[in-house]
Amino acid sequence: MCTDAAALVEAIRSLAVRGAPLLGIAGAYGVALAAARGFDVAEAARALEEARPTAVNLSVGVRRARAAHQAALARTGDPTAAAVAALAAARALHQEDAEASARMAAHGLALLDEVLSGGGHRILTHCNTGSLVSGGEGTAFAVALAAHRAGRLRRLWVDETRPLLQGARLTAYEAARSGMAYTLLTDNAAGSLFAAGEVDAVLIGADRIAADGSVANKVGSYPLAVLARYHHVPFIVVAPLTTVDPGTPDGASIEVEQRPGFEVTEMAAPQAAGAGGGIPMAPLGTQAYNPAFDVTPPELVTAIVTEEGVVSPVTAEALAELCARPPAGAPQASS
Amino acid sequence: MCTDAAALVEAIRSLAVRGAPLLGIAGAYGVALAAARGFDVAEAARALEEARPTAVNLSVGVRRARAAHQAALARTGDPTAAAVAALAAARALHQEDAEASARMAAHGLALLDEVLSGGGHRILTHCNTGSLVSGGEGTAFAVALAAHRAGRLRRLWVDETRPLLQGARLTAYEAARSGMAYTLLTDNAAGSLFAAGEVDAVLIGADRIAADGSVANKVGSYPLAVLARYHHVPFIVVAPLTTVDPGTPDGASIEVEQRPGFEVTEMAAPQAAGAGGGIPMAPLGTQAYNPAFDVTPPELVTAIVTEEGVVSPVTAEALAELCARPPAGAPQASS
Repeated sequence: MCTDAAALVEAIRSLAVRGAPLLGIAGAYGVALAAARGFDVAEAARALEEARPTAVNLSVGVRRARAAHQAALARTGDPTAAAVAALAAARALHQEDAEASARMAAHGLALLDEVLSGGGHRILTHCNTGSLVSGGEGTAFAVALAAHRAGRLRRLWVDETRPLLQGARLTAYEAARSGMAYTLLTDNAAGSLFAAGEVDAVLIGADRIAADGSVANKVGSYPLAVLARYHHVPFIVVAPLTTVDPGTPDGASIEVEQRPGFEVTEMAAPQAAGAGGGIPMAPLGTQAYNPAFDVTPPELVTAIVTEEGVVSPVTAEALAELCARPPAGAPQASS
Repeated sequence: MCTDAAALVEAIRSLAVRGAPLLGIAGAYGVALAAARGFDVAEAARALEEARPTAVNLSVGVRRARAAHQAALARTGDPTAAAVAALAAARALHQEDAEASARMAAHGLALLDEVLSGGGHRILTHCNTGSLVSGGEGTAFAVALAAHRAGRLRRLWVDETRPLLQGARLTAYEAARSGMAYTLLTDNAAGSLFAAGEVDAVLIGADRIAADGSVANKVGSYPLAVLARYHHVPFIVVAPLTTVDPGTPDGASIEVEQRPGFEVTEMAAPQAAGAGGGIPMAPLGTQAYNPAFDVTPPELVTAIVTEEGVVSPVTAEALAELCARPPAGAPQASS
């Protein structure tokens, strides 16, 4: 339990709280918490924003709650009123995220039905993008769930997602709980599925989308994009518009978080997760390359599904146009 | 310790003894062991051949020792002489494999120097192909080792190789022992290395090469081949000619071993490796897709390096020509 912003920063760093949309919500609540408990809000906001570098939603959420706090403070001069305003901003973001999930799910399902001919969809997904990372039912997982509820999901292929196994630990749990037909695989077994024609579409989330449509997401997403292209399978990114960062011009400008090597060289015992001290899987002293994310260029992304519609083909212009559009209440696909 | 063929069959099935060339040697010694201890040689040979389906070297080794045993028995009628002949055949195979390693290393290094311009080579490898799987210094690893000894290996990128982590457990050990500059990575982080231009060539072994040049190797090899092609990086297979199976016409004819799901859903504690009973990493009841190998079509293979020379481009004709050539003593590159 996080009773102050510092504890929340640590929870974010150790990935106890993770996933792009949830990071935004948590960041906003963190600012509200600092305000309610009388801490230095500016300092808490800075620490929260810097807890992890790649997911832009984190700083979007932090800044939104902080702006509400500052505005209320300037207007009323009352710290309590400002704290209430920060909490209201966090709650609004939380609620909007839940609604965005539902709209992404509807847009995504419509897109699947459009691009995939014939019967049930066999969807490959990577990492964890369901209700564990969202105020609602998530991003890519929400689309798979909508397909499942509509009776149109034949199978969810779940990448285990090394090194931290979010697919095996979290997505498999969410799929089992939802009653989906799902199968777990090591990340590198996806190639065999593509080669056998067993994947109809790839659905993933995003941690940051640059202005040109480059998508930073969990490491292992880019190899799937290359495989999908080679096998003519649609590669679909599902993310709320808060994930699009107009301030990041292109993929090369995205800062990719490098995480400690022990996540690769050791297998964390459940109680030691994220803290080192796990079971060694490699010789002592082995150095590991452990980027948390990779970047997929727009030319490999078939479509980006947002709560406001679908961008396909993915271009800077189409993305900017969508971001500029006034929010719509009802799902309505656009291309 | 394996004191009879049945124990050896179990050691092969549980992967205590593994790796294509070593499986051939072990199979031959297994037949010799059955003969020396007075067991039914035909039955032992059958059980050994069937222990694992994909690596053709296993049945090549078994059949060679069995043929020597049968010929000696027919000639002399003496079971002891026949057992001695089987052992001699196994020892000859062992010795030839060691010599083949040295010749593959020389051919492979010459090829690297030819196709890679400039300084040190940054080699990505998958699974384990060194002296732990060979009578000599292995296949792909032997080439990397030759580059290292020649001062031309800048870095060995070691894929961890899920699910059984042969890269993390075995290749990292062999690299550390040899004093190489090496870095471990999760299999799905290879995409980021390719994208960053950090991989000059991929070197892997093979478990079976079909007559058309399709290469069955550890699962995860095919995604690397697709990534290598997308990034214009040479994808080089290093294997002795015993790995080429003229009786398997193409990739679709290669039987790919499917292994138990618990290798994916559980993390084996060191003492429980391969036996189940590990730490669960996924919800109980999770079904896993766990092919041990995948198949890379010849059009994605830049070159096949054997002890008798290099095949590049990889075609059925070039491969058949190399297999038909009388063995040469000295390394001599051909294309």
